[in-house]
This record gives sequence, structure tokens and C-alpha cells, in this order.
Amino acid sequence: MGQSLLATISQPSDFRSFDMPALVQLADELRLAIIEIVAKREGHLGASLGVVELTVALHYVFETPEVPLIWDVGHQAYGHKILTGRRKDFDRLRQWEGISGFPKREESPYDTFGTGHSSTSLSAILGMALAAQRLGDDRPHLAVIGDASIASGMAFEALNHLGTTQANVLIILNDNAMGIDPSVGALKSFFQKEKGDIAQFFAALNLAYEGPVDGHDLPLLLSTLATQKDKKGPRVLHIRTTKGKGFPWAEQNQVQAHAPGKFDPLTGKLNPATPDQQVKFQDVVGKTLEELFTKNNTLMAITPAMPTGSGLVNLMRAFPDRCLDVGIAEQHAVTLAAGMAAAGFTPFCVIYATFLQRALDQVMHDVALQNLGVVFCIDRAGLVGHDGATHHGLYDLPFLRSLPNMTLLAPRDELQLRQQLYTLSQQPPAGPVAIRYPRGYGVLADWELPFEEVSLTQGTCLRAGNELAILSVGTLATPVAEACNVLERHALAHYDLGCIKPLDANLLHHVFSAHKKILVVEENCLVGGAGSAVLEWANSHGYTQTITLLGIPDVYVGHGATQVIKQNMGLTTTALIDKIRTLLTR
Amino acid sequence: MGQSLLATISQPSDFRSFDMPALVQLADELRLAIIEIVAKREGHLGASLGVVELTVALHYVFETPEVPLIWDVGHQAYGHKILTGRRKDFDRLRQWEGISGFPKREESPYDTFGTGHSSTSLSAILGMALAAQRLGDDRPHLAVIGDASIASGMAFEALNHLGTTQANVLIILNDNAMGIDPSVGALKSFFQKEKGDIAQFFAALNLAYEGPVDGHDLPLLLSTLATQKDKKGPRVLHIRTTKGKGFPWAEQNQVQAHAPGKFDPLTGKLNPATPDQQVKFQDVVGKTLEELFTKNNTLMAITPAMPTGSGLVNLMRAFPDRCLDVGIAEQHAVTLAAGMAAAGFTPFCVIYATFLQRALDQVMHDVALQNLGVVFCIDRAGLVGHDGATHHGLYDLPFLRSLPNMTLLAPRDELQLRQQLYTLSQQPPAGPVAIRYPRGYGVLADWELPFEEVSLTQGTCLRAGNELAILSVGTLATPVAEACNVLERHALAHYDLGCIKPLDANLLHHVFSAHKKILVVEENCLVGGAGSAVLEWANSHGYTQTITLLGIPDVYVGHGATQVIKQNMGLTTTALIDKIRTLLTR
Repeated sequence: MGQSLLATISQPSDFRSFDMPALVQLADELRLAIIEIVAKREGHLGASLGVVELTVALHYVFETPEVPLIWDVGHQAYGHKILTGRRKDFDRLRQWEGISGFPKREESPYDTFGTGHSSTSLSAILGMALAAQRLGDDRPHLAVIGDASIASGMAFEALNHLGTTQANVLIILNDNAMGIDPSVGALKSFFQKEKGDIAQFFAALNLAYEGPVDGHDLPLLLSTLATQKDKKGPRVLHIRTTKGKGFPWAEQNQVQAHAPGKFDPLTGKLNPATPDQQVKFQDVVGKTLEELFTKNNTLMAITPAMPTGSGLVNLMRAFPDRCLDVGIAEQHAVTLAAGMAAAGFTPFCVIYATFLQRALDQVMHDVALQNLGVVFCIDRAGLVGHDGATHHGLYDLPFLRSLPNMTLLAPRDELQLRQQLYTLSQQPPAGPVAIRYPRGYGVLADWELPFEEVSLTQGTCLRAGNELAILSVGTLATPVAEACNVLERHALAHYDLGCIKPLDANLLHHVFSAHKKILVVEENCLVGGAGSAVLEWANSHGYTQTITLLGIPDVYVGHGATQVIKQNMGLTTTALIDKIRTLLTR
Repeated sequence: MGQSLLATISQPSDFRSFDMPALVQLADELRLAIIEIVAKREGHLGASLGVVELTVALHYVFETPEVPLIWDVGHQAYGHKILTGRRKDFDRLRQWEGISGFPKREESPYDTFGTGHSSTSLSAILGMALAAQRLGDDRPHLAVIGDASIASGMAFEALNHLGTTQANVLIILNDNAMGIDPSVGALKSFFQKEKGDIAQFFAALNLAYEGPVDGHDLPLLLSTLATQKDKKGPRVLHIRTTKGKGFPWAEQNQVQAHAPGKFDPLTGKLNPATPDQQVKFQDVVGKTLEELFTKNNTLMAITPAMPTGSGLVNLMRAFPDRCLDVGIAEQHAVTLAAGMAAAGFTPFCVIYATFLQRALDQVMHDVALQNLGVVFCIDRAGLVGHDGATHHGLYDLPFLRSLPNMTLLAPRDELQLRQQLYTLSQQPPAGPVAIRYPRGYGVLADWELPFEEVSLTQGTCLRAGNELAILSVGTLATPVAEACNVLERHALAHYDLGCIKPLDANLLHHVFSAHKKILVVEENCLVGGAGSAVLEWANSHGYTQTITLLGIPDVYVGHGATQVIKQNMGLTTTALIDKIRTLLTR
């Protein structure tokens, strides 16, 4: 390749005069740039590689940003970001105060609408198009959505509305048969059918259809989009792409290459960056459930499109009829679990904290109100790091603890998580139970100890002392214990709260009777969180100590290395030491 | 009609030996019984009348309750309840501690799964069927779902999963072109098409289709269901029915006859039971928006399938392009609003508190995280009375106040609500604002006063005193003020909290500095509610008073007259007087 064209591009208008060979070269350079960046900086690889040609073509044909363009989910938008003035910023991709891995309105006028969770793009683009229509403005409005995301309920709601409007909305269905894991559901297979069949499906929703078109054939894409540009009204352009396109390793390992961590940009060889002896919490759940499933036929597991991320791949392979991937369908996942529980089974509904927000009503009505024994395994509760604001799991405690009948656990380590799962598998739980655990690695070398029934609702005194009592929630027990060790000349008391709902009244009476100074530490929003639960309890029992609450303040938290974020939030060992010192001298 | 057959039925097996004329007579009697009961007791009329033949046929053909049967939403299940042993209980329909207006698991083994919100039945029945399959049991599993409910996203998620299974699920699509208001969306029109077209839509989801069948032709229904009984696998039977069938007034006034209140069982003439001078909060919103829309072209309004209930019928008629009914699609409604706000418009997203639970993630990500100026008009916040546990709006405060950027208002009367709407219409709000107001009538004779900009975030001192400070939230200001009047020989202070987020710090500093005894009163769950917000504030500012919190305790609240429930919850004027007396003497 001769001179770099990509280096000359700071906005799409810079390449709108390019001829076809130059555009093809630009696409190739863009692909290489994405591979190089993600190899070093980590991030979402496969999705962005799959839409390189589409990205170039959309910005070439349409006058972005005057023409609004929304990338559903947004993890395919790296090429979009590079072409819209953020090439140089990629050195700080997904780093604290660097650019986001997802489109973000405050980052660029080209990021018309922030995304992160799937299936929002159709509603948002329709809202914009209807608003524009009110002003007599019939610019095209574009949304790019994958085949996994369009099958989610929210997208269907938008399609059903869209088909009744005259909004000038062009939906580009980016069909690669993949979400993060392979897409599931009846519609996915249907999209492989003949053109005419697919057109009839969209006709049922009163939407014009064109396709399928090879999404890697740049000349074809350009001419197709140019024709679409002259059309009006709500319509779907179906393109077929390959996730990871152009990087053989990524094409062959689509699940792994979704967000591979650091890797060799030539071979795809991964840089192992993980401690050997430790295990991820997600794998504690997956492995433990695998053991439990062999012992008990009435256990089931459900994941909404996250088998890999939730550590369920082996479980699913071993028990394909009992561990179900239902697609990007959190609402359905929860009520499906409720149906199983009503039939006497014990379903483990494994959902990231951030995605559980999609199913609050179902958790409340279909599970908690009916007091059904569904176990919610809430993965990635707390800070998740580089994925940032749309993926942190910081808001589950307020809504879950407000639900009557709910039992809400926060195990402090892998072993406790394992034993809680075991305990809950022994007989159908009397009502709903939610277990929240963080993203990433645990702390124990040895967690696969023999099963033992444990009390679910008792907290634990981890250290006695009379100067200051620290109540920690979940895995923050570890940094708190470390801080206490460093400060061992002080008589610090440390309690693992254990159960957030119901609270362990015996433990709390002990804490409040014996201590004047109390600190509650949690990795959740402070508004309505576990600290707030302790406040409510103390107030209702007549305790009047001022309680120091440490957690996530009332702002959205950005992306970056988890440790960097934690340091900013005062939740690392060193930050805790400082905080405790301040309290001790006050 | 000769001897009553209905009186002899205490369970479906009692009529499984009937011949056709007897079944027809039973259906006729059932219809009359429903009309008579609802005329006296109030409740959901039209939906239950529309499925009289279906109800008889399902229980005749299938061995309920061994064959699970779920009624989606459930307001069409009166006939089902009457035929399954609850005829005599109908005298206490929807009354406190009487039978529920919706299916409820604890009420009867025939109520396989509790419903209340739409579109849950398909997920629940699939969960049950998959569980049964695990036990080698291939009983049929039945779900009845309307055309408005099947178009909601959650139902689509279930269909997309269902089509990949061999579950023995028969979905009965009860197509009457109505939700509470007429159905909307592209799919609704499509269901009017030819048989072959509709079959192809379901084929896309890999579901067998039969229909459409006249749902009021009992012999045809019986033979159709008998044939379906011998089939296996996931399939859809499409029946066409008329909401209100067999009661001419209800057929002609389908919206009004959905839940008409008391009426004459012969003519349908309604018993006006409403105070002449007062207005419902929903109509304050509708009428005020109508005035504001004429002044400002950038205002929009969105309702997810509740134009009548939300007081928006006239607004929609006057501004059909600016006030949109998007169907049972809360998730879409919220993100559509976000798109409009991103385009510079001010959308008023009018949603019942209980239905907002369906869209927490969208409120958080698409609106609050992006700090977009969407105004949420949260209707039916608090206790709603006879609809009961699935419809009370008691859980919005914990999840809404946990969201950064959110402003959360609770006006104390119609005038304040009106002026807040006016104030928010004057320029696009800087971020999301939620206004919560209750179901039913206000208290003012005169609320349509000239518009005036008001402070949104200030509370108000309504009465000064030094014995006890009462902070009331929203419209509880009225019973609290009445209680204070009765107890006027005491020096009670009464403050309207006004804004739940952000709290009015000046007002609270004043309250906490000047008062030892403080009572917070709210119509919301106590866990994480407004009282909890006051606790958090007081704790963080070093105030150590014990605060008495009055609100909804940590149990689900049943159905009944709102005043009866309020009395039980201690929220009526008389109950408040007792509570205040206790606090004064303590």
C-alpha cells in the first residue's frame, strides 16, 4: 500500500470526492487500523471489522452528521469514530477520560445518539425522524442494527410503530448471524431464507424491504445506498456481513474475537494477562451449576444472549435442554424462569446487572409478586471497567431491595458464592433470590471445596474491634480486610453484611450497640443502596449514630480500568485506608 | 331460559358432559352473569364478554387445571373465574380481601399464572411447557393473548424463542382489534389480511398457524379446539372476537365499556358517581397539554396504549401528529421520546407508574444518562384501588431517584401540576424530569388559573409549628393538612416536600434545625422511597433525629377501594390523626 489515505481523513467530507479505488483502499486501511488499535488497547474487534465497508459507504453516500446515523449497541462503531475525527484519540480508547468504546453524544456531533444496550436505535431514530417531519424536514434517518438486536422485543415495538408512519427512516439490517455469541431464535434462521420470504415478513409490518446485499462488496453497497438515498418512507435494507471480516483469525473465532483483550495483530494469538490460579466469578457460577445439574434434574439455567460472558458455555454443552440461551430478551428470560418455577423447577436466571434493568417489571410481577423460587445470578454487579457508563452494574440494589419477597445476597468471595448456589439448589427456594457478584477475577486460590449448606441471610464478623465498625458489601470485603490489616494498630471491626435483604438484624444490633463510628462500603449507587438500607434499619430501631456511606455518588461513572475508576471512587485498598484514617481522627 | 345451568357449575368437569344446546345456554348465562356482576360491582366488562364462548370451549375441550391455561393481562378472565368455582365469590370482586379482578395463583389452581400487565403469558407458558417436557410430559399448554398484547416486545421475544422449540404450546390469538383503546401498529392491520398472509408471518417465526376462526361460533370453536388438542408443538390459533359481544351498548362503546364503573345492565346507562366540580389528575395533564400545545410547536406527547386512561383523547384528536399512541410498548415509548428530545423537541411521555417499570433501562440509558429533556408524566402513582397489586404505583421512587440527572417532582394538587407542566414547556428542560401524580380526582374546585412559572425544586411550608414537623409527599398534603386542622391545638408544622430529587436543602435544613420530631408521609414503598431520601440527606448532614416514616410497608398491597386500602396503610386523615397523636405523646 502506498501513501496512507486514512491519515488524511479528519471527517467524512474528506473522502466524499474519492474514486472507487481510493475508497477501497480507505476501507482496507480502516480495517488494519482497527486491528492494530484493538490489538494494543483491547476492545470490540469483530463487530467493527464486519462493518468496515458499510461505515465507509454510509458516510460517503449520506451527508452525516446532518443525516442522523445511529449504531445499535454501538460496539461496531470504531470505524465510524476513526472516520469522524477521532483517529488520534484511539490511543486512549476505553481509558479513563479517553474516548468511549460506544457512540456518545458529547463526544462528537456524528454520534447522533448514545448506545450501549441493544435494540434502542430504531426507537431513537424514529423519534428524530418524526420530530424532523414536524419541521417539514425529510432528511433520511439511518439506523444500523444487527440480526441479534432486531429480534429483541424493543426493536419489534419500534418496527410495529414505524410501519404506520411516513417517517424517512432507512434501517440497515446487518445480518451476520451473531450477537456476542451466535444469534438464536426463529427469526435468525428465517433471515437465511429467500429474498421474497423475508420481504413478506417486513411487509407484515408495512415496511419496504431490499436485500440481501453482500455487505463487503463496497461498489455494490455504494450503489445500493445511493438508490436508497432517493427513496422515502420507512424501509429496511438487509445486508449480509461476516463478523471479524478480513482478519482470518477473527472470522474463524467469532465469539473469542468479539472482545478478545490484547492480541497479536498478525496471528490473533492472545496475550494471556490473567492470573493462573484465580477464577472469574462467572466461571464459579458456570462450573458450580455444572456440578449441581448432575445431582438435581429440576435445575434449569437461562441466559439472555450471554452464554460466553456468563460462564455458561460448558453447562450449555453438557445440558443443552436445561441451559437455554434465549437471545437478547431479558424480559422473556425472566418470565420464562417464572413459568419454570411455577412448574416446580428451580431456574437460575443468569443476567448482567446492567441488563437486568430491562426486566424490572418481570422480576417484580412475574417472580416476586407471585413469590416464585427463581434464582437471579446477577453478574457484573458493580464497576465493569472499560465498557463504561452503559455497562456498570450500579443500580440494581435500589430496585431489587424495594421488592417485597426478594432475598438479596452479595457473597464476599468465590467460595461463598459457590456454597450459596449449592444451598439454593437443595430445594426449590421459597421465593426469589438474587445473588450479585462482580465482573472479573476472584481472590481465592482454592474455591472448589466440598459443598456445604450455608446460612443465606447471616452476615459475618471478620474482625473485632471498637474504634470503628466497617460494614462491607460483597467482594469489597477483600480491600476492606486489606485496609484493616494495614491499619492493624487500630481496633477496627469488620463485618461482611452478607445479605442486603433481609438485613441480619442480630448482626446490626451488635454493630450499632457496640460502635459509635460506622462505615458502610458498597460498589453500588449510594442513593437507595445497601448503605441506605442500613440507615433505614438504624432509624427504625432508634439508633442515632451518624453513619458514613461510601459507594458510587450520584453521577454516571465513565469508562476506564476498573482499578482506576475504583481509585476515583475511593474503593481501592489505599483509598479505603485514607478514608478510615480520616474517620478515626474525626 | 328455563332452569339455570350456571348455578349447577362449580368446576369445568361439571359441564364436560353437556350437549351442544346446553353449552350454548351455559355461554348465554355466563354472559348475563358477567353483565350483572360488573354492573353492580364495577370491573372489566368488554374483554370478558368477548371471550365467553372461548372460555366455555377451552374448559370443555381441555382438562383444566391439569392443562395449564394462562390469560394474558387477565382482565378477560371473569368467565373463567365463574366457571372454576368462584361464582359466589363475585359479590366481593375487586373488594378488599375479596377475589381479584385478575388471575391469581393463590386464588385457584385454575389460575395457573398470575397476570395483570400485558404480554407475559407466552413466556410463562413456554417456561411451564419446557419444564413439563423435561419430565416427559407433553400435555398441551394454553395461552390466550389479544392482538394488542401480542404486538408488545416481550411477546415477540417469546414467539421468537417458542419457534425454536418443540414445546406443546397452543397460543390463542384473540383478535378484537382492541386493547383498552383501539389497537395500533402495523401488525394490527396485517391481522385483518388473508389467511395465507398471516400464516406466512407466523411461519417466519416457525410457528404453525390456523385461522381466522369466528370466536363467537361455539360449535366451530369446540371442533377447532378439539382438533388442536390432538396436535403437538408450538402453534397459533387465530380467533376473531368482538369486545363487549352480546351486550349491544358494550359493542358500540368499546372503550367506555372496557371498565365502565357501575351501569344499568339492560341499557348500559352509566351511574355517574363522580363529583361534578372536581377533575381527575389525568385530565389536568390532558387539558393543560392541550393549551400548551397551541402555544408551542415543539411539544410532543406519547402514550403507550393508554390515551383514554391518561386523559389524552382530546389532545390526540386536536394534534394527531404530535400526540402519539404507540401501543403496548413502554420501552419504545421512552426511547422514542429520547429521540425527539435529541432532535430539540420536548416530549411528554405519559405513562402509568406501574407500566414505567417496563422501561427502567430506557429511562436510565436513553434519557437520563444522555441528560435529555424528556418529561415523564407518571400517572397513577400511589395506590390505585380495585386493580390491586399489579397496578399500584408504589415502586417508582426507588428506581427513579437512583438515576443521576433525574429531577423528580410530586405536585400536591392540580394547580401545582398544571404550573409545573407550564414551566417545563417554556424551554426544553436541561435534563429529564418526572412528575408523579395519583389516580383519580383532585381536590380543587378551581385549578384552571392563569399560567405562571413556578420553582420546580422548592418545597413549601404549609403550616408553622414547633411540636412536630410533618413532611408530606405529593397529594398526601391534603389529608395531612386536614389532620393538622383537626389537631390545631397542637403546634404542628407541615411542609410539602415538593421535589423528591433534588431535595430542597434549604427547607430541610430549616426543618431539621427547628424540629426534634419529624414525620415523613408518602404513598410509595418505604424501602428506598422519599422518606429514605430524607434519611440519607439528614445522615449526610449530621442530623441525628429519629425520623418517623409512614408509607407502604414491605409487602404487596392487595385490591379494594382506595380509601379502604389507605386506611389499612395509615394514610387517611383519621389514620394520620392517630399517628400524629401517638408521636406527640411519645
